[in-house]
Amino acid sequence: MVVGEFVQKRQLMIIGGGPGGYHAAIRAAQLGLEVTLVEKEAMGGVCLNEGCIPTKAMTQAASNLSSLAHYKAMGINVGDATFSLDTFRSFQEQQISNLRSGVEALCKANRIEILRGTASFMQENRIGVETGHQFEIYEYEQAIIAVGATMKMPKELSYIEGKIMTLAQWWKLSELPEHLLVIGSDYMALEAAFTYCQLGSQVTLMTDDETFGLDRAVVKELQRVMKKEKIKLLKNSTLIEVSLHGETVIATVLAQEERVTIEASHLLVAGSYEANSKEIGCDFLKIAVDEAGMIEVDEGCATSVQNIYAVGDCTIGPKLASKAIKQGKVAAECIGGLKAAFNLASIPMVIHTNPPIAYSGLREDEAKAAGYTVKSGQFAMGGNGFTALAGQKDGVVKLVMDEQSDLLLGVHMLGRGATELIQAGVMLLEMAAREEDVAYPLYAHPSLSEAWMEAVEAATGKAIHIPPSKKKETLSK
Amino acid sequence: MVVGEFVQKRQLMIIGGGPGGYHAAIRAAQLGLEVTLVEKEAMGGVCLNEGCIPTKAMTQAASNLSSLAHYKAMGINVGDATFSLDTFRSFQEQQISNLRSGVEALCKANRIEILRGTASFMQENRIGVETGHQFEIYEYEQAIIAVGATMKMPKELSYIEGKIMTLAQWWKLSELPEHLLVIGSDYMALEAAFTYCQLGSQVTLMTDDETFGLDRAVVKELQRVMKKEKIKLLKNSTLIEVSLHGETVIATVLAQEERVTIEASHLLVAGSYEANSKEIGCDFLKIAVDEAGMIEVDEGCATSVQNIYAVGDCTIGPKLASKAIKQGKVAAECIGGLKAAFNLASIPMVIHTNPPIAYSGLREDEAKAAGYTVKSGQFAMGGNGFTALAGQKDGVVKLVMDEQSDLLLGVHMLGRGATELIQAGVMLLEMAAREEDVAYPLYAHPSLSEAWMEAVEAATGKAIHIPPSKKKETLSK
Repeated sequence: MVVGEFVQKRQLMIIGGGPGGYHAAIRAAQLGLEVTLVEKEAMGGVCLNEGCIPTKAMTQAASNLSSLAHYKAMGINVGDATFSLDTFRSFQEQQISNLRSGVEALCKANRIEILRGTASFMQENRIGVETGHQFEIYEYEQAIIAVGATMKMPKELSYIEGKIMTLAQWWKLSELPEHLLVIGSDYMALEAAFTYCQLGSQVTLMTDDETFGLDRAVVKELQRVMKKEKIKLLKNSTLIEVSLHGETVIATVLAQEERVTIEASHLLVAGSYEANSKEIGCDFLKIAVDEAGMIEVDEGCATSVQNIYAVGDCTIGPKLASKAIKQGKVAAECIGGLKAAFNLASIPMVIHTNPPIAYSGLREDEAKAAGYTVKSGQFAMGGNGFTALAGQKDGVVKLVMDEQSDLLLGVHMLGRGATELIQAGVMLLEMAAREEDVAYPLYAHPSLSEAWMEAVEAATGKAIHIPPSKKKETLSK
Repeated sequence: MVVGEFVQKRQLMIIGGGPGGYHAAIRAAQLGLEVTLVEKEAMGGVCLNEGCIPTKAMTQAASNLSSLAHYKAMGINVGDATFSLDTFRSFQEQQISNLRSGVEALCKANRIEILRGTASFMQENRIGVETGHQFEIYEYEQAIIAVGATMKMPKELSYIEGKIMTLAQWWKLSELPEHLLVIGSDYMALEAAFTYCQLGSQVTLMTDDETFGLDRAVVKELQRVMKKEKIKLLKNSTLIEVSLHGETVIATVLAQEERVTIEASHLLVAGSYEANSKEIGCDFLKIAVDEAGMIEVDEGCATSVQNIYAVGDCTIGPKLASKAIKQGKVAAECIGGLKAAFNLASIPMVIHTNPPIAYSGLREDEAKAAGYTVKSGQFAMGGNGFTALAGQKDGVVKLVMDEQSDLLLGVHMLGRGATELIQAGVMLLEMAAREEDVAYPLYAHPSLSEAWMEAVEAATGKAIHIPPSKKKETLSK
């Protein structure tokens, strides 16, 4: 290895080219900063190469495949459709490759210097970058750490590529499982379970939190839909041990205090996240982190060390690209001398089950715990005129409000269109909307959005498409 | 016919059971009023039986059929799909029938008296209802007129069922046309053209307003998409005459000052609306109407005659169910003693082409004409990461703002998800949102809604996924 003789000077160094890193880089370039971005693997990070994009390609495929029964009912003769995982993998790789080329082209167009290598801090204003054959030292004015986090397998389990993996890799199974066991309690567990089920696998979903973090109205409907889809849900369950007999994964589980044995062909299991910040010497610099190594940042993404910022999965908080994107831009703007801050209170959570789930703000129980007297309204998607045309009548919309001020506190939806409609909820929450702000506007007809209008009207017993006898059920306090 | 001996007394009489009428009826019942609704044909009116629902069933079918190429690309082997109009008609009728039963059941559950007959005003507080074999006279406290409007064939053309019809009946052609000629300049013309084209017909669309009422950014993208879909657009055209030779419709057209002859198998043509209010004696009561017979109403839906209200298509303004629904509820609430008003400034306009179009608020040219110094931002849907996964990269989002106050004035979108995302735009406009209110919130990733984030950022040259060299194009003042 050749070690550079001189310390090179740079203005802004960004470590990591995932969504947090590249958004930061481009925004900084837009503000006139000279930007150098270090990436040791593929541009686009986990999100583009191993997360959001490949998983959403797969959830889309499963949704599309399962929509064909409706297509037939409406006169579209598609015969007996089959799914080819090989063709899908080519499609998936092509999408990833296209999007990655796009990110690379954008960085180039914004005159961002890309260093392909591994970075490690040497001093508070110096970082070394190893590019395989060379090691260069850079002195920077500011740095942004955007190195992400990694979901680790639970220690007691053995990783087998394509067969026993973490939920962060759920889209990577080497074949469509005959029987997939999913162990987890978050959006990844739900996406994996629905996708493989709708692509034809038998699926068992084991969880120690059957709410999956969702509002109870959504949980109730979700459980009904899972039953209909024949996803076997093992509630209140903990894993005792896993063994492999030939090709069969044998899991022993304590499910509702009973010992159960499950034989599966594949296993996906939730692990815990570790920040990738150690690898670049954050501990050496004494940047403040929590016990999992997640970096502490203020609302402007500044760390405890001057001139060093951090964004995305390596910081404390949810591991979501939407957070990384916002933080990336905020950090760049703060460095560029603008006032900027992020706030995750109304972060939209979108789960690509089929039908999808989305929410923002507080659940009813969270609102109560926060001291609000809660008023809520909900509406079953089956009562919406558009759902029958769309071939998807399952679902529910629920709006959580403060009884005293009529302030909207949270929006929750399971159903067709949730992935797009949630943005209206985020806007409403951010603008401190009240009941009247949801009830007053016009809603296109026929449209899925009308379910929101009916949900807000249901809070005062005025939904048009809920019979008077059922109104009590939809009113909860 | 038997004429009732007594004048019967009723509290609220509603004439017409379309969306305006039945929403008024149910809301009035919710407020404790005794409601009698007179309907001479099918409950649900034009919207449910002849308009919104049957057309949207058909636009969905066309979208679904045309999505199959993408399905194949992602590994879903569907073979060579065909479309059966017969099977589709059964589906369509079933949906209409189900929804109609739903409306009837809701009316019953709300104890609304339904009279199946034809109403005609006799005095300001009296109305006669003929039910075929019987004629009864009712004295009411208040009445709501919700009788709708009818699109009339242009006088110079002959109606031929299933072959030469108005655009209001576009979904009713007796077969898939070999070559369809569509003459019109509104959303119906676009929906008919796209739907039949994507179901396999050759389509020529003739218009005297190639903007179709859309913002110029959307028009530009729409024309590109039409070209790609091989919908032949005859701009700046007027019809000279139509004749029928055997089964062939021969239209002579003046297209951009050239005389053109078009041979088609079927013709759909825009007509003008006439209110159905004459039939019930509105002129006898001297209710103020415009030249087309459309009833003048105030913001509470009151007509010029005391105690008589009017809602929906028979009133001045757009012929949209969303307006009828809002007006129906407003009229009922005003009669019930509440304060209520409607305002159509932010009415969402949704066009079920594929990809769909939706907008709310002012176009750029309208904003300029209203005296604003316009700032706008736009983003091509192809730059959005989700569109490739969804198999639909066409489209554009444009936000129109006031340069001085940053106030959002209009939102315009062509592209996947527009039908749902527009509701966020309506909410923003109704809450008098400013640029910052669109730029600040988090957007789920990957999602179609991120195109809105990039559009608002584009207004200040800060969209992340637009290369610096292309920024000038997206900035317009």
